[in-house]
Amino acid sequence: MFELHPHCVPLAFLLGTWKGSGSGVYPTIEPFSYNEEVVFGHVGKPFVSYVQKTQHAVTGLPLHAEAAYLRPVGDRRLEMVLAQPSGIVEIARGTVEGTSLRFVSIVHTTPTAKECTAVERNVDVDGDVMRYELRMAAVGQPLQLHLRAELRRRP
Amino acid sequence: MFELHPHCVPLAFLLGTWKGSGSGVYPTIEPFSYNEEVVFGHVGKPFVSYVQKTQHAVTGLPLHAEAAYLRPVGDRRLEMVLAQPSGIVEIARGTVEGTSLRFVSIVHTTPTAKECTAVERNVDVDGDVMRYELRMAAVGQPLQLHLRAELRRRP
Repeated sequence: MFELHPHCVPLAFLLGTWKGSGSGVYPTIEPFSYNEEVVFGHVGKPFVSYVQKTQHAVTGLPLHAEAAYLRPVGDRRLEMVLAQPSGIVEIARGTVEGTSLRFVSIVHTTPTAKECTAVERNVDVDGDVMRYELRMAAVGQPLQLHLRAELRRRP
Repeated sequence: MFELHPHCVPLAFLLGTWKGSGSGVYPTIEPFSYNEEVVFGHVGKPFVSYVQKTQHAVTGLPLHAEAAYLRPVGDRRLEMVLAQPSGIVEIARGTVEGTSLRFVSIVHTTPTAKECTAVERNVDVDGDVMRYELRMAAVGQPLQLHLRAELRRRP
C-alpha cells in the first residue's frame, strides 16, 4: 500500500506476519512453552511497527503481549520504544547487521508493576525463519535468559 | 471470544473500534486536521489494549500512531504504558470516573526524539461518541492543548 521509507530498507527483512513457538525460563517461575504471533508492519514513514501476542502452548490462553516501534537512526543504529501490559516500557538502543538485530533497553515501570531493570533482545532472521532470545533482569535476579523462540513467516 | 476480566469491567465502555476526526495545534507548527481510527480490545486478562492511527485529513497520508495498554489497579485508578513512533514512551497514572478517563504521563524519549516532558489526556465517552483532548509540554513549550478529536464507535 505504501512504499517503504528509505530509512526502513535495512529492516525490510522483518516485514510480515510470523508464527511459531517458544519457551520461557526464569529462576522464579516454572518453565513454560508458548505459541506466538508477531507482525512487523510499516506505513511509509521512517519507522517499523511491531505487535506480538503469545498463548500458553497447552491451554491456548493468552499469556503476553507487547507493542513497539523501531526507528532506524542511521549507520545501522536503531532505537525502539516498546510497551508491555505488565506495566513496562522500554527505551531500547540497538543495531541491525545484515538480518540480525541487537537491542539493549532502559526499562521504566508503573508503580504496581513487578520490578524489571534490564532487557536485551537478539533477533536473527534466516529467510523465512526468525529466531530470538530475550534476556531479562527482573524481580531481583541478574540479567539472564528468559525467552527463546523460533517463528516462520506466513505466506 | 474471551470474557472480560473483572478488573476491566469499569473500562468496558471503551471497547470497540472508533473512527472520527480531530485537529491539532501547537505554537511551533501550523494547525492541522486529521482522521483517526482507535481500537480498544481485550483478551480476558486484566488490561485493555489500545492502538491508534491517524491520517492527514487532506492528503490521507499516515500522520501518527501509538499503542498502549491500560491497567486498572483498583479503586478507579489506572496505569497506562504507551509507545509512540516519534521515540516517546509514557508511564501514565489516571482515573476512570463513569465514562471519563484522565491521565497524566511521565514521558521518556529516545536519544534522537524531539523533547517532550509531559502529556495529559482527557477522554470522555457518551454512548457511542468519544471525545478526547491531549495536552502536551514539548520542544520547550509549556503544557498546553495539542489535540482535540471526536470519534464514533463502529457497529
